[in-house]
Amino acid sequence: MNLPKKLGFSEETKLLIIHADDAGLSHSENMATIDSLQKGIVNSYSIMVPCPWFYEIAIFAKNNPKFDNGVHLTLTSEWETYKFGPVLPVSEVPTLVDENGYFYKSREELRKYASAEEVKKELTAQIEKALKFGLKPTHLDSHMYSVATKPEFFQIYKDLGEKYDLPVLLSRQLMEMVGLNSNLNLEEKDLQIKEIHLGRFDLFEQGKLQDYYKNSLDNLTPGLNVILIHPAFDNFEMKGISVNHPNFGSEWRQIDFDTFTSDYCKSQLKKNNIQLVTWRDINKIRQTNSLH
Amino acid sequence: MNLPKKLGFSEETKLLIIHADDAGLSHSENMATIDSLQKGIVNSYSIMVPCPWFYEIAIFAKNNPKFDNGVHLTLTSEWETYKFGPVLPVSEVPTLVDENGYFYKSREELRKYASAEEVKKELTAQIEKALKFGLKPTHLDSHMYSVATKPEFFQIYKDLGEKYDLPVLLSRQLMEMVGLNSNLNLEEKDLQIKEIHLGRFDLFEQGKLQDYYKNSLDNLTPGLNVILIHPAFDNFEMKGISVNHPNFGSEWRQIDFDTFTSDYCKSQLKKNNIQLVTWRDINKIRQTNSLH
Repeated sequence: MNLPKKLGFSEETKLLIIHADDAGLSHSENMATIDSLQKGIVNSYSIMVPCPWFYEIAIFAKNNPKFDNGVHLTLTSEWETYKFGPVLPVSEVPTLVDENGYFYKSREELRKYASAEEVKKELTAQIEKALKFGLKPTHLDSHMYSVATKPEFFQIYKDLGEKYDLPVLLSRQLMEMVGLNSNLNLEEKDLQIKEIHLGRFDLFEQGKLQDYYKNSLDNLTPGLNVILIHPAFDNFEMKGISVNHPNFGSEWRQIDFDTFTSDYCKSQLKKNNIQLVTWRDINKIRQTNSLH
Repeated sequence: MNLPKKLGFSEETKLLIIHADDAGLSHSENMATIDSLQKGIVNSYSIMVPCPWFYEIAIFAKNNPKFDNGVHLTLTSEWETYKFGPVLPVSEVPTLVDENGYFYKSREELRKYASAEEVKKELTAQIEKALKFGLKPTHLDSHMYSVATKPEFFQIYKDLGEKYDLPVLLSRQLMEMVGLNSNLNLEEKDLQIKEIHLGRFDLFEQGKLQDYYKNSLDNLTPGLNVILIHPAFDNFEMKGISVNHPNFGSEWRQIDFDTFTSDYCKSQLKKNNIQLVTWRDINKIRQTNSLH
């Protein structure tokens, strides 16, 4: 039985999660994420536990349990002047940090220097901190999909899903983008997303990001699709965070916000017979059935 | 010999440090502090090492050594949704934090729960982190003057000045405001500020904060005066930080910025024969002479 059918829809249903990454990063990111959930068509989000504005979004999540929210497992800190590091003391995870105690900027440094044991400790600590705050995560995913920089890290990521009985974002596309051989690191039983729709820097530079999102909505295929966005306001704080880093920067994030709170995109969902689903929906059938 | 004379001025000189507290708190605070130093009459500032935007202001401080900058020793996190905690692992300083691992909101909680040993460890770690980043602090001061909540904490604060050979902001006025008996906790040899000029909430509420600052400039008396301000922009980020906390909140900080970058206040310095001095100036004579 295919996934749409298990969820109670016809086999050919176009399922879609519209997911906001990076909540907790900043006040701008938090407020735009909340607006996208409340006024837009975003229906799931995930939280960066190590980030400065974690507390604010954690309060929101606790007070608004109807919204799907996951733990956005974080191992990199990509910005130039705005930095964050592990929730564990640096002395416990020295291979995860630079000389200042912050996460590395790039996936490449993480792949090169991080020990699998410390990756496991830190990611577990992030989930535990979320639970300790009273969050009830609906899923796990990974900031910059950095868990796919090494097979050992990827296995830890999958194991954490088992351990906490949560669905985990698994995608051949993202794995291959980050450099992992999906044939070796995915099993038959793994729930895979059929297609991830994620903006690209060349599209942003050409002013075509919004068109890309609209095309994604118009050309979805049956099965489980995910659109990954990063809504934030292009304001003073967010410009400061993304200084010299236009890739997934402040302007990009404003486009994400504008697009997924627009009436046009709302109407396209209906016009294209798109069925929004959440990680919580998927988790319900995951817990009662085999998914393949 | 009195302080003005030691600094090479006549005995009756009105000396003034215009000091920006709380750098590192936010991007808004950092950028307004930098503007106040570069375009305004602020001539010294201090950095909160545990705060999220520490890295940005530390880079500025390293690249702009001409500006006096101190370590704004931090033991409280007063905001409602924006939180910070110790630079040391929570497990090493458990009496300094709330159930979520953040500093207490109030001085009263700090006074009640914090152990002196852990205060010493954490404040030392903040200075060491600043030094490790390559900062060359010109002075030490204290966020919310929370070091004056207990005689033991105050002694630690003074001892850190000795240990790192740095001047420390000592003020009868601030001590008494926070509840410490200055007669017991200050010695003859301590360098005391003659008068601290710090805005009050009732003045802010009455719309009289700017007048207060102007009056301070017009009515300075001879000796060493300090105006303590908190420049920031009243923008989305800073409004988010100071939500439900107008005392030293976003609007207040914009007034601080506007006042001390205004042409009017610049001209009042000259008109009132006010001599700006820095902690670095004071440190020079402190190291070669007795100050009393």
